Amino acid sequence: MKTLNKIKESDILATLKGAGGGYISGQAISERLGVSRTAIWKHIGALRKAGYAVEGHPKKGYRLTAPVERPFNALEITLDIPTEFTGKEVLFFEELESTNSKASELARAGAAEGTVVIAQAQSKGRGRMARSWYSPAGVNVYTSVILRPKLPPQATRTITLACAVALAEAIEDTTGAAPSLKWPNDVLINGKKVAGILTEMSSESDRVNHIIIGIGINVNIEAADLPDGLRYPASSLKQETGRLTDRAELCRNLYSRLEKWYKVLLSEGSEEVVETWKERFTFVGKEVRIEGYRGIGAEPSVTEGICLGIDSEGALLIKERSGAIERVVAGDMAQSPG
Amino acid sequence: MKTLNKIKESDILATLKGAGGGYISGQAISERLGVSRTAIWKHIGALRKAGYAVEGHPKKGYRLTAPVERPFNALEITLDIPTEFTGKEVLFFEELESTNSKASELARAGAAEGTVVIAQAQSKGRGRMARSWYSPAGVNVYTSVILRPKLPPQATRTITLACAVALAEAIEDTTGAAPSLKWPNDVLINGKKVAGILTEMSSESDRVNHIIIGIGINVNIEAADLPDGLRYPASSLKQETGRLTDRAELCRNLYSRLEKWYKVLLSEGSEEVVETWKERFTFVGKEVRIEGYRGIGAEPSVTEGICLGIDSEGALLIKERSGAIERVVAGDMAQSPG
Repeated sequence: MKTLNKIKESDILATLKGAGGGYISGQAISERLGVSRTAIWKHIGALRKAGYAVEGHPKKGYRLTAPVERPFNALEITLDIPTEFTGKEVLFFEELESTNSKASELARAGAAEGTVVIAQAQSKGRGRMARSWYSPAGVNVYTSVILRPKLPPQATRTITLACAVALAEAIEDTTGAAPSLKWPNDVLINGKKVAGILTEMSSESDRVNHIIIGIGINVNIEAADLPDGLRYPASSLKQETGRLTDRAELCRNLYSRLEKWYKVLLSEGSEEVVETWKERFTFVGKEVRIEGYRGIGAEPSVTEGICLGIDSEGALLIKERSGAIERVVAGDMAQSPG
Repeated sequence: MKTLNKIKESDILATLKGAGGGYISGQAISERLGVSRTAIWKHIGALRKAGYAVEGHPKKGYRLTAPVERPFNALEITLDIPTEFTGKEVLFFEELESTNSKASELARAGAAEGTVVIAQAQSKGRGRMARSWYSPAGVNVYTSVILRPKLPPQATRTITLACAVALAEAIEDTTGAAPSLKWPNDVLINGKKVAGILTEMSSESDRVNHIIIGIGINVNIEAADLPDGLRYPASSLKQETGRLTDRAELCRNLYSRLEKWYKVLLSEGSEEVVETWKERFTFVGKEVRIEGYRGIGAEPSVTEGICLGIDSEGALLIKERSGAIERVVAGDMAQSPG
């Protein structure tokens, strides 16, 4: 008797997709994957449960009918994803307190670089500066990626810039819109915030243990459903493009771009990342106001002046009215009113 | 009936110590602290269990006889410690895998700034760069302190320097020896390593969640009991001073100095910390060899040349044979042979 192979839903899904909408017989699947008809039946049940319309015909076999809406799940993201390590392992949850907290827990337990966490909803979604991130179910993307750069912690400040570039490019790839960037790590379309990044790091003096890149994207949420009283005008991809966006495709593009820019950073240093980031930074030459820190020993302070850009380490440079150039390492930026 | 006060062992211990070796009656203790004789009896039992020689006399009362060796426990450290928040709460363990891991767990659960963890032994003691730290029971100090500076992570690089200064001063206060410092965070006596620091941080882009300062000191261990094959010549306070050191006093001095320098750093910036660190840095002008990182995009590399010192951010400056000045942010330093 032949030993049966261990297969996963993704193998069956890939085989069905390979038939391009046509039928493929249970016998053919069984021979191709070296598994029993019972195993195929079980996995097709699981695929249907996951939202795939798999049609069965007593003589012709199985076929995947075109879905009304493509499912948003781990299978659709990992299947043939053109990356080396990012998004190869996707942990998908209906609801989490926070994808960053879950990813941090997994990272401490030893999860591999590139492991991804996604949630359909977050009950305690977090933004920068311990703020909350509005995370209703089923319409947006909330995802975290585990990175383990072999670098001292002080060399990693540009990783968030690299991720912001990747995020903007992934949105552009998927929707055709041309996002701009706001310092330090927001993505805007038509001047309104549609996505943000929360980078969390666990480090020693000399090396990084792990970095969690948390990304929230307002995708298909209606503008009317966004909360009031946000610090910065917010919108969604749906509102700004007028179309629904396939979240699985957006995630695939995001993980691909993220891996690309992460590799550029590790192999070539920060110059190309910083230059590419600057191309999307539209605040240069404008009057801005920053609530932030200038450094150690300094109280949180307000800096106002003309935005000059960022330096090679990602700090913001502001020319004050006095002519002095201030370097701000962390804070909130807004264009000055009027 | 009078309401009884809730008291702790430390209240009884303080009262006994206050009597300066003389007797104090149970009645007097009862009146002073407003507790029952039974409560006093219970706490005295606990003190005896913790290693204190409390003598009881049917008529005269209680007295604390001078101990052969002062106990090393949380009570001896916290009692009247002249700090605002550091070492007020001491969690003392007979054995831990690692004091830093326990402190990190406590910090994630919300432990206050200044909370201290001590272990008599570590089964998985850690040093920098994921190396192990030899941690046999009962002879040395293994301790971790939780800090929560309200600062962006990139502003905290000098905290380890501040701790190294505090550690050297605490050893000097307690033993009279004059320690020197080796970059980035080792304490030497007579050129041999007697203590080290492992700083671990959990941070977001804009703020520190918490920092764990882990400190290991070879105190009363005999030189012959130190492991072979260490990267750098090692010794202990016992070996270098010829005397046993009171570990409780060493810890008290350490937490006091640590809080002092931490406050200097937060209120005045890094200048005084860096200048004080430099005074104990004896490698300036010498030929050194560093295995370390120059920055992002750079492979771990060896830098050799004359040590010029450190800059305001704690990076090491090396003048290479070519005349170029290299800035090294992380790595291992050793004096070049010959």
